[in-house]
Amino acid sequence: MNLATQAPWAGALAEAEAQALRGTRGANPLVGAVVFAPGSELVAAGCHRGAGHPHAEVEALAALPPHWRARAADLTLVVTLEPCRLSGRTGPCVRAVLDAGIGRVVYAAPDPTPHAGGGRELAAAGVEVHADADPASAGRLNARWELARVAGRPFVTAHLAQSLDAKVADAQGRGRWITSPQAREHSHAVRARVGAIVVGTGTVLADDPALTVRLPGEPERELPVIVAGASPLPSTHRLAARAAAGGAVVRVPDHDPLSLLTASGADHVLLEGGPTLLSAFIDADLGDELYLYVAPVFLGQGADATGALAARPVHDPVRWIPDPAGHEPQRLGPDLLLHLSPAA
Amino acid sequence: MNLATQAPWAGALAEAEAQALRGTRGANPLVGAVVFAPGSELVAAGCHRGAGHPHAEVEALAALPPHWRARAADLTLVVTLEPCRLSGRTGPCVRAVLDAGIGRVVYAAPDPTPHAGGGRELAAAGVEVHADADPASAGRLNARWELARVAGRPFVTAHLAQSLDAKVADAQGRGRWITSPQAREHSHAVRARVGAIVVGTGTVLADDPALTVRLPGEPERELPVIVAGASPLPSTHRLAARAAAGGAVVRVPDHDPLSLLTASGADHVLLEGGPTLLSAFIDADLGDELYLYVAPVFLGQGADATGALAARPVHDPVRWIPDPAGHEPQRLGPDLLLHLSPAA
Repeated sequence: MNLATQAPWAGALAEAEAQALRGTRGANPLVGAVVFAPGSELVAAGCHRGAGHPHAEVEALAALPPHWRARAADLTLVVTLEPCRLSGRTGPCVRAVLDAGIGRVVYAAPDPTPHAGGGRELAAAGVEVHADADPASAGRLNARWELARVAGRPFVTAHLAQSLDAKVADAQGRGRWITSPQAREHSHAVRARVGAIVVGTGTVLADDPALTVRLPGEPERELPVIVAGASPLPSTHRLAARAAAGGAVVRVPDHDPLSLLTASGADHVLLEGGPTLLSAFIDADLGDELYLYVAPVFLGQGADATGALAARPVHDPVRWIPDPAGHEPQRLGPDLLLHLSPAA
Repeated sequence: MNLATQAPWAGALAEAEAQALRGTRGANPLVGAVVFAPGSELVAAGCHRGAGHPHAEVEALAALPPHWRARAADLTLVVTLEPCRLSGRTGPCVRAVLDAGIGRVVYAAPDPTPHAGGGRELAAAGVEVHADADPASAGRLNARWELARVAGRPFVTAHLAQSLDAKVADAQGRGRWITSPQAREHSHAVRARVGAIVVGTGTVLADDPALTVRLPGEPERELPVIVAGASPLPSTHRLAARAAAGGAVVRVPDHDPLSLLTASGADHVLLEGGPTLLSAFIDADLGDELYLYVAPVFLGQGADATGALAARPVHDPVRWIPDPAGHEPQRLGPDLLLHLSPAA
């Protein structure tokens, strides 16, 4: 079919994109899927909720009402990304679509990974396939994810908790705790999504953080930690103790972002600070998203949150944008959370 | 009547307080009013929208449906503040209540100004009056306004437009424009509410601001300007030209907040910057509200927005709170606006 006849999918594709935006970004791209009955009735929807969770197609198919399962050949699955042929922790989506007996599949953008070809496989099995119906959709949803994938590096989430005057510590170097318990609980939920944590020696020395995932109702969980910087860690510090006990603590003697990412061996890393590390990643355009927690306080003097950044002229600053996934600024107790992505 | 029988007003007073929060704070307190029919039916509501606008009672009475005007003796007016006997630019509320023929008035808190006595005047005219039904309400709504009034100083609104790293200018001293046209349009609406502007010489020298009110569809309007600091202003600068032409430009040779407020002669002043001035007011606890515009950019190096603040320990910072009037953080184009008040 040619492009001119694909316009009828525009509304359905927009619906799938809206579903995608409900998902969680990280090592995996945002993907959304919707199922339509003849007459454009929306009968099911799903999104990808991050690593380890079912893909969007599988979620949408699982949400099909029983009376539509029996008539699946009449249904159209519309998805923002080509269904996968192979996948790591969850079954391939092509298999799920065929098992469900879906009659028609429309997808917006081709799978950019080595696992591409799901569209062809569906067509070969007799499904009516409308490929690449809106390739720009992938850019809107997953530009930074795609950039990281092409560069062969992990997706980088940065965490920053600062005062209104952009300090992470007071004049005596004390930074615990500027933000509220509610903000810290949120940052544990962010931690829970990543494969490794990168932290600078300055932060380790100042705060002696545990860098574990602590979520209500779940056992405390360790994550591999990459420590940037050459300063020795006293054996009394928690990370030193963890390393001595055989835990996954990797030392990298400098703050070079690419060395740190390589050392992580992960698909998705979290930068936990401090200023030297965060500045190095922002200057290198290697931060893919930023969770910025702002406490409504002034410290007056102290450590600047991103004090090692290179100077930029006012007409050409490092520009970030509210996350394209549409997250509005939110209150976390007294604090504010901004979710930002680098501008293109 | 005794307090025990006033509990039935709790819901009505809460409704009046909710109305008050829709208003605009500044030289006047937040006030809200609601009118109830027998059986607790809410038939009208109003709030005070700032200097020069009708008081809340007048707004609520103007909103009465015609069939209730004819039965006003059956109505109860509930207001957060004692109705005024005298008022500057709008008529006294006592007169409006009597003219409307309202049968009963409940007010939460007494009028703290020399114009108090409206409650007694209403009672003397035969209105059933329930006074001081919830005196704490005034504190919840207008603590900072009351503080300024008791101190005999203007209410102080501060304006700050900064980057994510809390800079107001880049390393070359250029600060125009960090925030967006949408943010600047909002700050003109804030300017329109005040009686005078206070600005530091550093900001005047760096930015040569016009400091006029420019609102869509309205003629440009000058406001009295108080310039803090001893540096001479070149005659080519707009404020120097305005002063030479006989405009209201007052020089104060230092940054002492109280001298500047006294020199303003206004009920409500706006601090337009820069860092020295804003820091002096924050340190002296003389900022009553802050409109903080944050552009999602990093400048790396440059002038700190509040760089002259005294150092505070992390366990005792200068703490602000989201405005008690309940304004949520809002987007202004790419920027974010926080409306903050000093914590008690």
